[in-house]
Amino acid sequence: MGKRLEQLREMLGIVADLQAASSVLGWDQQTYMPPGGAPGRAMQLATLGRVAHEKMVSDDIGAALEAAESEVGGLDPDSDEARLVRKARRDYDKARKVPAEWVGEFRRVTALAHRVWEKAREEADFSQFEEQLKEIVALRRQYVDFFAPYDHVYDPLLDDFEPGMKTVEVKAVFDELRPEQVALVQDIVERGTPVDDAAVRQDFDMGKQWDFGLEVAQALGYDFERGRQDKSVHPFTTGFGSGDVRITNRLDPQFLNTALFGTMHEAGHAMYEQGVAPELDRTPLGEGASLAIHESQSRMWENLVGRSSAFWKGFYPRLQEFFPSQLGDVELDTFYRAINKVEPSFIRVESDEATYNLHIMVRFELEIALMQGTLDVADLPEAWNSKFEEFLGIIPPDDSQGLLQDVHWSGGMIGYFPTYALGNLIAAQLWVRIEEDLPDLRRRIENRQFSDLLGWLRENVHRHGAKFEPMELLTRVTGSGLTAQPYLEYLRAKFGEIYRL
Amino acid sequence: MGKRLEQLREMLGIVADLQAASSVLGWDQQTYMPPGGAPGRAMQLATLGRVAHEKMVSDDIGAALEAAESEVGGLDPDSDEARLVRKARRDYDKARKVPAEWVGEFRRVTALAHRVWEKAREEADFSQFEEQLKEIVALRRQYVDFFAPYDHVYDPLLDDFEPGMKTVEVKAVFDELRPEQVALVQDIVERGTPVDDAAVRQDFDMGKQWDFGLEVAQALGYDFERGRQDKSVHPFTTGFGSGDVRITNRLDPQFLNTALFGTMHEAGHAMYEQGVAPELDRTPLGEGASLAIHESQSRMWENLVGRSSAFWKGFYPRLQEFFPSQLGDVELDTFYRAINKVEPSFIRVESDEATYNLHIMVRFELEIALMQGTLDVADLPEAWNSKFEEFLGIIPPDDSQGLLQDVHWSGGMIGYFPTYALGNLIAAQLWVRIEEDLPDLRRRIENRQFSDLLGWLRENVHRHGAKFEPMELLTRVTGSGLTAQPYLEYLRAKFGEIYRL
Repeated sequence: MGKRLEQLREMLGIVADLQAASSVLGWDQQTYMPPGGAPGRAMQLATLGRVAHEKMVSDDIGAALEAAESEVGGLDPDSDEARLVRKARRDYDKARKVPAEWVGEFRRVTALAHRVWEKAREEADFSQFEEQLKEIVALRRQYVDFFAPYDHVYDPLLDDFEPGMKTVEVKAVFDELRPEQVALVQDIVERGTPVDDAAVRQDFDMGKQWDFGLEVAQALGYDFERGRQDKSVHPFTTGFGSGDVRITNRLDPQFLNTALFGTMHEAGHAMYEQGVAPELDRTPLGEGASLAIHESQSRMWENLVGRSSAFWKGFYPRLQEFFPSQLGDVELDTFYRAINKVEPSFIRVESDEATYNLHIMVRFELEIALMQGTLDVADLPEAWNSKFEEFLGIIPPDDSQGLLQDVHWSGGMIGYFPTYALGNLIAAQLWVRIEEDLPDLRRRIENRQFSDLLGWLRENVHRHGAKFEPMELLTRVTGSGLTAQPYLEYLRAKFGEIYRL
Repeated sequence: MGKRLEQLREMLGIVADLQAASSVLGWDQQTYMPPGGAPGRAMQLATLGRVAHEKMVSDDIGAALEAAESEVGGLDPDSDEARLVRKARRDYDKARKVPAEWVGEFRRVTALAHRVWEKAREEADFSQFEEQLKEIVALRRQYVDFFAPYDHVYDPLLDDFEPGMKTVEVKAVFDELRPEQVALVQDIVERGTPVDDAAVRQDFDMGKQWDFGLEVAQALGYDFERGRQDKSVHPFTTGFGSGDVRITNRLDPQFLNTALFGTMHEAGHAMYEQGVAPELDRTPLGEGASLAIHESQSRMWENLVGRSSAFWKGFYPRLQEFFPSQLGDVELDTFYRAINKVEPSFIRVESDEATYNLHIMVRFELEIALMQGTLDVADLPEAWNSKFEEFLGIIPPDDSQGLLQDVHWSGGMIGYFPTYALGNLIAAQLWVRIEEDLPDLRRRIENRQFSDLLGWLRENVHRHGAKFEPMELLTRVTGSGLTAQPYLEYLRAKFGEIYRL
């Protein structure tokens, strides 16, 4: 590596360390921090955010960047070095547009909002959270203004999570998806052979649920030498370099799916981060390419693997050993259908694959309306419920099962939700390619062997980190850009069989 | 508060936030971090240390300090404002002497050393840790040089933990203590009625030990809304502002004292930090006055309270309820004598009150020799064992029960140990004053009522934080400076009775 690039890397390393420190504080805040820590933590996170931002936008980095750009000018544009500089330039130019004061204020407000949201959610009372969300939306509108002019007010938000993606593209693919998914769900509800999910709705000892989840995560390939699982209100994955990538989860004593698929989902995220080439640590490339690519990993392990009949052919006997009185007499096929029951429901993270994207579309449309100013935060509960009824045909009985269910808005993460749906599509696109490359994949999964699948993902996706932009990565791997068809075909085939359509 | 002081406070607040973030990362490192996180964590801690140091020594703070000094010039020199500026000046002048590169390097080396020490300790093999300790000693000798000229090479180290204290003063008081404590121990061993500690050396369920410890800590007044207890190899207390002060502990399944008195000790530290006036948060006054004052609190709760007959008159029935089969038939007096058994032993944190200070003196003399260069790190195991035999009459069977037992050196904390012994002396000095102010203290402790004691400590010690230098605080509260006599009298009275001397 050239000397100038080395200097740039060292400066970026400091920024990465400060961001990692923020992430550790964020993890702690959601797992172990006592209530009294909240005000202090808000200040600490605000300071870390502001200092990291100051460092990132410093003239020193600007100069180092220019020097490094001239140094890597002659290199292969696809080399790690050239890509590192390119990504750093993109991040730098974006960060320079955002004042440090805004960053500090945003951090402070969102750190405090987390606790408020938690309490509001617990008490199913949106009004407690309303003021905080107003502040957050106002801050996000300020943020968007830093990037004017833009094609769409939602673009600058989306770009933070999905570099290069435009709101109009998301709308287009959602417009293609929605009628098809609504039709599929209607078909299932009206014509399908009913599925009974009583098997997964029994009393399941929480300690055993936890242990089974750990066993599954380990089998999939999540490395506990470089990770761990803790409890939190909302499951999440966070990493501080490829050597320490942690997941959290929650347990429902009377519903097996919550913890089980939560663990697989988060392990999918975590294996991605653990698989990033270690030499990219402490650089802007040392993380996933985007949230949609991330979600393609988590949803692949959760659904294409974890909710498949092949997976349970291998793992169901083991699950029965954990819960002999609950599942000893339940047939594999009954269990398989139970975990895949399609039913419009209130909670996104517990929803089935056929309805999941509809939950996302509700949030996507509301976020756009909030940002455009056509919807007031005060009117959000009503708007949520009416949009929910329109897309899913049901109305949440209270706010905690409605608009308070997700952590994202309390963290200021507007623009994040669509990436979940995009992740579903990308997972299906990747899967088509994986099945071509690993023809005996199904047999391997049945035998609880996941190392070839993980190896394929490592080689084609994980190790690159953020070296390629998400759509570029997708095209390199699958030969095509974003498309809804593989996912729709997957859904139709899977649920057609389960519901005997 | 004046505008200039406000500006200074804001700058110091940023430094405090970065230090708090370091402390969170340190806590995580010792409690939950997976092994793979070690290299990244070392970088993160190095960066946080370097950035906090840069901020602290910045010309901006220098200018703000001068402005604030002129602003508070007319105020009562004992006001919070004047003291804040004075302490900030002291910290600033010290920090300016230390280059940022040294700070970063020190953080990096010690963060890595922690894991190496843990492994070496586990495998009772000092040679694994030797290289790291050499680096640390070399770094500490560099550090001392930044403060030249000094009276004693150990002074700059001691001053970091015990502001204003000189090595010669510590030597003087240790020279007074040592012959008396050695004589007392000899007396006990040769003439005392033997004490049988079989009662505390049985199988004690670890979950129950943990729960009992939590109950005791809560009763003493440790606020779990602003704290928590977790497991770690070496017990410690760490705080990130008065709203979040955490303790850790370890368990021995066959020795009750370890966890029990560990919890009381750490709770003593934590109650001190929790008791600092919240308006001092995020300032250089928002922490304990010194480590010796800190240790006076932890040792007071652990020993003067926790190992007293009054405490167990109140709590022993409850302990018996936790462990009916182990302690149901054990008399209170037998139990009281068991927890106070005097016996030269290897592990400092498990040693009795009569021998404790001798453990400290071993370390103090070796540290001075290392710093003076009259002892090589390579020769430390032999030097440890021979000094240990000289002071305590026994030789550790292996390194993990010898020089590897403590975390301090791996963290670069040379100069820290003497504060433990000083804390014992100060605790006894404070106790004399407390008994004057709270004449029915014994009865209250027997009734498990600790709020008056805690209230006295809050009022006289805790709330001031680091507003006063340690010896100044001691003199304000007790009317005299450091003296060994109250502690020696306490030891003679207590152990004279227990050993029927």
